[in-house]
Amino acid sequence: MLERVAELGIPVPGRDTPATVREPDPAVDPFQDPGLAQRICLEQAVAAALAGEVDALLTGPVDKARLAAAGFPHPGHTDFLAAAAGVPVAMMFVSPDLRVVPATVHVPMRQVPEALATHLAPTLVTTALALQQDFGIARPRVAVAGLNPHAGEGGLIGREERTILEPAMQRAAADLAARGHRVQLLGPLPGDTVFLLATRGECDAVVASYHDQALIPVKLLAFDRAVNLTVGLPYIRTSPAHGTAPDLAWSGRANPGSTRAALELAVSLARNRARGAAAN
Amino acid sequence: MLERVAELGIPVPGRDTPATVREPDPAVDPFQDPGLAQRICLEQAVAAALAGEVDALLTGPVDKARLAAAGFPHPGHTDFLAAAAGVPVAMMFVSPDLRVVPATVHVPMRQVPEALATHLAPTLVTTALALQQDFGIARPRVAVAGLNPHAGEGGLIGREERTILEPAMQRAAADLAARGHRVQLLGPLPGDTVFLLATRGECDAVVASYHDQALIPVKLLAFDRAVNLTVGLPYIRTSPAHGTAPDLAWSGRANPGSTRAALELAVSLARNRARGAAAN
Repeated sequence: MLERVAELGIPVPGRDTPATVREPDPAVDPFQDPGLAQRICLEQAVAAALAGEVDALLTGPVDKARLAAAGFPHPGHTDFLAAAAGVPVAMMFVSPDLRVVPATVHVPMRQVPEALATHLAPTLVTTALALQQDFGIARPRVAVAGLNPHAGEGGLIGREERTILEPAMQRAAADLAARGHRVQLLGPLPGDTVFLLATRGECDAVVASYHDQALIPVKLLAFDRAVNLTVGLPYIRTSPAHGTAPDLAWSGRANPGSTRAALELAVSLARNRARGAAAN
Repeated sequence: MLERVAELGIPVPGRDTPATVREPDPAVDPFQDPGLAQRICLEQAVAAALAGEVDALLTGPVDKARLAAAGFPHPGHTDFLAAAAGVPVAMMFVSPDLRVVPATVHVPMRQVPEALATHLAPTLVTTALALQQDFGIARPRVAVAGLNPHAGEGGLIGREERTILEPAMQRAAADLAARGHRVQLLGPLPGDTVFLLATRGECDAVVASYHDQALIPVKLLAFDRAVNLTVGLPYIRTSPAHGTAPDLAWSGRANPGSTRAALELAVSLARNRARGAAAN
């Protein structure tokens, strides 16, 4: 398995990056070590996707602590996928009623305003392009959820909507327009009602300001059907929107709903991309 | 109508507080002026509730701008009710699946940490006592939703859970215990999963850290059935959990669901209080 990874030119941490990581022992079956098994599967799959051997990648949840112990130098899946492809990506949660992209993820709330100043504009661009390319929506409508209550109520309840969010939306709109993409950016809209608009079909995706704003509606409306889609990659990548559950292994009680939805979405989006490529 | 207000000893802004407010003109029928009509109805109803003439008060949504123009010196209903009763209150949103209390409301996100330091402990106490007195739950379980993603993940994603939320929970627990109330405070728990626990009946109420964290689940799960209950008052007060909709007036398209639910909840809670009083 390690040779196969090496053939494909993917750096193997612990061999190609010797500093602080553990040297894998080729005498040991890597699948005796759950962390190493996860790492090898992931690295091989990404290599195949980047080489164009597959159109889509479906990943299961990973045990991040074991993965790190096996010499994996990224905090999680998505960071590795972005680094391996060399592109900026975003996480889109897709459910039957809702597409939601958090513009910031594991950021303390105090640091969200400055993180939005950096990440909101590229997230809007990546989201809009994915709606066009992967979902086949010619002129996507992307709503932005405000940071403050009532989206700041015209500056009465916080000014970040005016000083950070609106300028980022303007930069994203200008970037998309300059590249010939027709996109409608809506907002910033109040966080407590924007998801209702989305469930009623009044926008094609919501870009949320922070983690809980994105994940509360996703988990409440679609706990076992939500899919984590990485947008921005040169291939389709989906994953169930939940973590590992070692306590459920072999119990027969694990719920495969989100993984099944992730597989179906990957197939559907890969077909859309192929159609789009054939049309161009 | 103004005489009746005066008889009940409620200060009439614009007459008893002459500074910056408009003087009502007794020659004018107050119901020609929607703001004045709202103010008089509200003041009379509160007087009757405080005098013990009624067990519960159901208020409709108000037009805050018109109310202010009619000399009403409070930002909204709830502030007036708290001031008139001289007690701290909290807003509880009640739906068939969920009871949610925001510990901070119209506060910019940047100021939420310091607002929590002040308001979280009293909100927890008020919430717990309302669950006992009004909902008849002998030993309420109150969950606290963290401020940061994953409730700070043990300090990795923000430290306010440790420095602000946990100390406030300890103060509230000590206060309740000292007064002989048996209450279980849970958390701080991750904001994106705590509402699932609540819908599964694993806690009796969630106290949220900020506005959108409370209102996103309420509006998504129970848009036309949610009731705004003011907890902490000497009487029951409910209100529909939505604003005015002048564009729907006389159209036949307004949805009375939340108002009907507010009336049913007021009756049910007033009965619980009467039973509790009879038992003591």
